[in-house]
Amino acid sequence: MMDNLELIKQISITSPTKIVLLVIDGLGGLPHSMTGKTELETANTPNLDRLAADGICGLADPVGPGITPGSAPGHLALFGYDPVAFNKMVGRGVVEALGIDFDLKPGDIAARGNFCTVDSSGLVTDRRAGRISTEKCAELCQLLGKIKIEGVNLFVLPVREHRLAVVFRGEGLAAEVSDSDPQQTGVAPKAVTARKSPARRTADIANEFIEKARAILAKQHPANMVLLRGFSRRPDIPTLKDIYKLNPAAIAAYPMYRGLARLVGMKLLKTGPAVADEFDTLKQNYDGYDFFFIHIKGTDSAGEDGDFDRKVKVIEEVDKALPALTGLKPDVIVVTGDHSTPALLKGHSWHPVPVLLYSKWCRPDRVGEFNETACIASGLGRLPATQLMPLAMANALKLTKFGA
Amino acid sequence: MMDNLELIKQISITSPTKIVLLVIDGLGGLPHSMTGKTELETANTPNLDRLAADGICGLADPVGPGITPGSAPGHLALFGYDPVAFNKMVGRGVVEALGIDFDLKPGDIAARGNFCTVDSSGLVTDRRAGRISTEKCAELCQLLGKIKIEGVNLFVLPVREHRLAVVFRGEGLAAEVSDSDPQQTGVAPKAVTARKSPARRTADIANEFIEKARAILAKQHPANMVLLRGFSRRPDIPTLKDIYKLNPAAIAAYPMYRGLARLVGMKLLKTGPAVADEFDTLKQNYDGYDFFFIHIKGTDSAGEDGDFDRKVKVIEEVDKALPALTGLKPDVIVVTGDHSTPALLKGHSWHPVPVLLYSKWCRPDRVGEFNETACIASGLGRLPATQLMPLAMANALKLTKFGA
Repeated sequence: MMDNLELIKQISITSPTKIVLLVIDGLGGLPHSMTGKTELETANTPNLDRLAADGICGLADPVGPGITPGSAPGHLALFGYDPVAFNKMVGRGVVEALGIDFDLKPGDIAARGNFCTVDSSGLVTDRRAGRISTEKCAELCQLLGKIKIEGVNLFVLPVREHRLAVVFRGEGLAAEVSDSDPQQTGVAPKAVTARKSPARRTADIANEFIEKARAILAKQHPANMVLLRGFSRRPDIPTLKDIYKLNPAAIAAYPMYRGLARLVGMKLLKTGPAVADEFDTLKQNYDGYDFFFIHIKGTDSAGEDGDFDRKVKVIEEVDKALPALTGLKPDVIVVTGDHSTPALLKGHSWHPVPVLLYSKWCRPDRVGEFNETACIASGLGRLPATQLMPLAMANALKLTKFGA
Repeated sequence: MMDNLELIKQISITSPTKIVLLVIDGLGGLPHSMTGKTELETANTPNLDRLAADGICGLADPVGPGITPGSAPGHLALFGYDPVAFNKMVGRGVVEALGIDFDLKPGDIAARGNFCTVDSSGLVTDRRAGRISTEKCAELCQLLGKIKIEGVNLFVLPVREHRLAVVFRGEGLAAEVSDSDPQQTGVAPKAVTARKSPARRTADIANEFIEKARAILAKQHPANMVLLRGFSRRPDIPTLKDIYKLNPAAIAAYPMYRGLARLVGMKLLKTGPAVADEFDTLKQNYDGYDFFFIHIKGTDSAGEDGDFDRKVKVIEEVDKALPALTGLKPDVIVVTGDHSTPALLKGHSWHPVPVLLYSKWCRPDRVGEFNETACIASGLGRLPATQLMPLAMANALKLTKFGA
């Protein structure tokens, strides 16, 4: 697949055409026992159905049959990157820091953090410190931001509720250090250790930060300690501009998806979280870019909560707002998900995700409605999600002929 | 695909759920000229059809479109191993020895053998010695077992009719030696030669065995000589336990399939050869394992014989016995073949094999009967057979999420 990116890079060209990739997170589902219909089959979606009728449909495997993807590999695949090869390169700290619009430099080491609660013996009693408010988190991050460590600039960044990101900037830092987060309660936070000897100084710095944080937070029960994990450096991966020669923008409200988008070189647009807000952001910025990634979170959240009806409602909300998107007449529209999240399973799943691709040049199939069952006998058929970007590019006439 | 096993290994977990893989050997067929229906389409299979209706179907390519698989690559693919990469590692001698439940040690060199007939000039006149009886084979193997070669322990093992296995056990043996079997009549058996210099001693030992066998068998016409081929050492391949964390058992009556199952670490259960015997063996051992491979041989034998009607009857026999399997309520049932064996072709073929997967979580398609034509517009679609194990594992909820 890295080879495939090399090929695409050779044949991609710039053009005035525009591509919109609408990712309805966790879109795929499983049939309700009472009706035999999935969430998407239950939802009333006249606009998506019309787009499916005019376009070509398929069922995409984000990673592979049987593999349940996390959000990172799921999105990497949608952006055309081999999700297994590239996921290895993407640390959680990096995604967290990028997701809050922090301008991570190549040498920076980023860690994902939690405020947590420890008892008088120092054992973790709550890994999330009772989910303190985002405001409290910001206040505590400001306190920790005052910590001084020789030779290092520190950035302590609030994310949401108990979550934060810590960025260490300085010469000669290394990412090959272990987590302090023990990932369980009843035990003490672990010391950060170097997995390779050049990372020893970084481990020492992380431990110094943690001990100074412990002292500062001592009186801040329940958030009286901090746990760090996913130490990582911004990976050197080709951007969408490098590969596809695109000028891409992301419309996503949640940090993780903003982080993933930034990682592949998208400009992050400011947006409200509602579907209508996001489509409005698209309209406001439509002239400035030739590729838009729009991320809808509500479907996945509802699926994770096991709330079949709410997932149906979010899908209907997207459908209702869709004319705001189609009205802009993008040359290519791709609608899919980064994975399935069936309400019945209350979590991500391995099931392939319905996909529709609309363009003037798509060679329409006979699929007349957009859902899992209808997409079985479809023109794109069952395909790896990594093939969607080349297809979108081709349909936007942004790929030239390969070979003489 | 070896990388894919690495991925599966990372995300597989143990759970109390059970998977049954029912392999109907040579299942796929070609339409009869009178009816336009394949063997499977001709057979009356209400139980398989019901399972197909409740499950999800597909058409599996064991090796790839156009490639006719032998039994070894066909089964390797079903067990999730890249059939091209792993087949290279699996010698015929090893499969033969493991298949008769011989406890092959890592340094042992195993060869597959035939008793054959040679004329007074030493030229092979019948490579199968008139298919002597299995009893005669055992008697002759006992004679050959008395051969002494310095520094080597010899095991001469009867298999079936004219077929035997020879195992050489000792220090410093190597498998890189050529066959003595010329694979044709009218010529003399070939001398075993070393393909790499460290194998010279092994070639000498094999030739010494063959010459001593010639002397012992001289008066045993038609079985007056022995041919050896497929010298091999048990390969170091990951087991189903290594990859999938399964505790697997095999229910197979024929040596080759028992050998393949043992190679990937399955426990071989004692069973009678009839379909009902095998399903009874499943029932008797159901509590002891979480994965069962059941091998049905009769379909392939009938196909090889060009006996369309007998193949139909064997399929109907499986269908009739099926409630004994489904009544155990395995969490996942996969029904497929290791390849197609159309009676019209009287042999294995390259045609994709119908597959059905049943589980509570399978997202059923609209396929309501189990056969080649119905499986075309199916939920799994056309897929490599190697993807069936990850799918079975996912449907048994034995795979965790990949990536954050």
